[in-house]
Amino acid sequence: MRTIMSGVDGVKALLFDVFGTVVDWRSSVIREGQQLAQRQGWPADKVDWPQFADTWRREGYTQAMRRVARGEAPWVRVDVLHRQMLDRLIEQHGLQDLDEAARDSFNRVWHRLQPWPDSVPGLIRLKRRYVISPLSNGNVALLTNMAKHAGLPWDCILSAELFGAFKPDPAVYLKAADILGLQPQEVMMVAAHRGDLEASERCGLHTAYVRRPFEHGTEPRLEDVSPNQFDFQADSFEDLAIQLGL
Amino acid sequence: MRTIMSGVDGVKALLFDVFGTVVDWRSSVIREGQQLAQRQGWPADKVDWPQFADTWRREGYTQAMRRVARGEAPWVRVDVLHRQMLDRLIEQHGLQDLDEAARDSFNRVWHRLQPWPDSVPGLIRLKRRYVISPLSNGNVALLTNMAKHAGLPWDCILSAELFGAFKPDPAVYLKAADILGLQPQEVMMVAAHRGDLEASERCGLHTAYVRRPFEHGTEPRLEDVSPNQFDFQADSFEDLAIQLGL
Repeated sequence: MRTIMSGVDGVKALLFDVFGTVVDWRSSVIREGQQLAQRQGWPADKVDWPQFADTWRREGYTQAMRRVARGEAPWVRVDVLHRQMLDRLIEQHGLQDLDEAARDSFNRVWHRLQPWPDSVPGLIRLKRRYVISPLSNGNVALLTNMAKHAGLPWDCILSAELFGAFKPDPAVYLKAADILGLQPQEVMMVAAHRGDLEASERCGLHTAYVRRPFEHGTEPRLEDVSPNQFDFQADSFEDLAIQLGL
Repeated sequence: MRTIMSGVDGVKALLFDVFGTVVDWRSSVIREGQQLAQRQGWPADKVDWPQFADTWRREGYTQAMRRVARGEAPWVRVDVLHRQMLDRLIEQHGLQDLDEAARDSFNRVWHRLQPWPDSVPGLIRLKRRYVISPLSNGNVALLTNMAKHAGLPWDCILSAELFGAFKPDPAVYLKAADILGLQPQEVMMVAAHRGDLEASERCGLHTAYVRRPFEHGTEPRLEDVSPNQFDFQADSFEDLAIQLGL
């Protein structure tokens, strides 16, 4: 890890992974699932919402994305991937009484994810010096609606959608820097996930790892990151702002 | 013109033309030109800055864009078009003492254009109900830097650059609606220019004409728009917000 500001003097933009790094997707999906169950009058034990959320994320997003990366499936919006998996989960859990409007609305829970408590105040501080933008596999509409809902003060919305690929494809990081009129070394990727940061690093971007121990549940779990890996390691966006001298 | 809110109940996003509609490009370029002349120690009559600004805009942007639209030139970023024209103007005016750093910096005056006085307060009001975004031929970096500089509270940054075309190509309007996850009729284009609005209308978007009589100088000049043309006609973004019941 470098000392404060050294090595990142030329950085002009910070790009943020979103799911897990900026927003707490798991708690948000669980909460809305529980509210939906109540509205529908389902018995409390009909759905295990933490497990539902984890499966939706793992199979509807992570695994679907890998199939696209391997060329086994064409690129489609994350909204579509989420919906395909939601329809399967509805089948599996016997929730077929959900009508089209309710399915569409529940699928948009991913547009309404709640930020971690430090996300908005941290971003406001970081925005004073840097151009701040998401760089997510989430599509533009999802990221735009999420920002409006959660008050995320982005300077612009960059999505892998704009480049027709998904992270960790190098094209996503390189084209994001280019569209901002910047060299890769003028950009720093901020993420809670090692793979995203390692791919950024291979493209010449700077990197900041932010620990999000509760992304996957109330039992703290951290990525396997060594102490000197990446330009910065922080416990929150506010901690990162302090380390950057803001 | 429709009465308040009728016919636009389904509108979810407002897309804004930028040069002339949101920002006063002419005064901004003149002012920075005069400051540059002073720094360089040029005699006060060496450059007619209003004329310089007009030529830069007309030949470096409007005409260059038409060549791209006619297929006579490949699509390139507006930053590049502006720079090509700036280099020609530098030749014509005998300003070759400007070094590369000064040329690059002056070319970025288009990233630092000043908003009209009602732009920021009007956008803040309109943002309460609508997704607000630029839809400009200016490139993403230009629009992002401009927003940061001028405090434009966009929800996202949409540029013709994302679609590899320039307005008034229908693809730009249709793809902008699509990337927001909206139908054309859920989007309203806001512009000070008839051609932009007519092209939007042909794509099924709603339209709001905002009068900017001083875009081209201190002598007021308006577009040739008939009284009932477009869904709304307004004197400012704040006037538009009022007409929309905000």
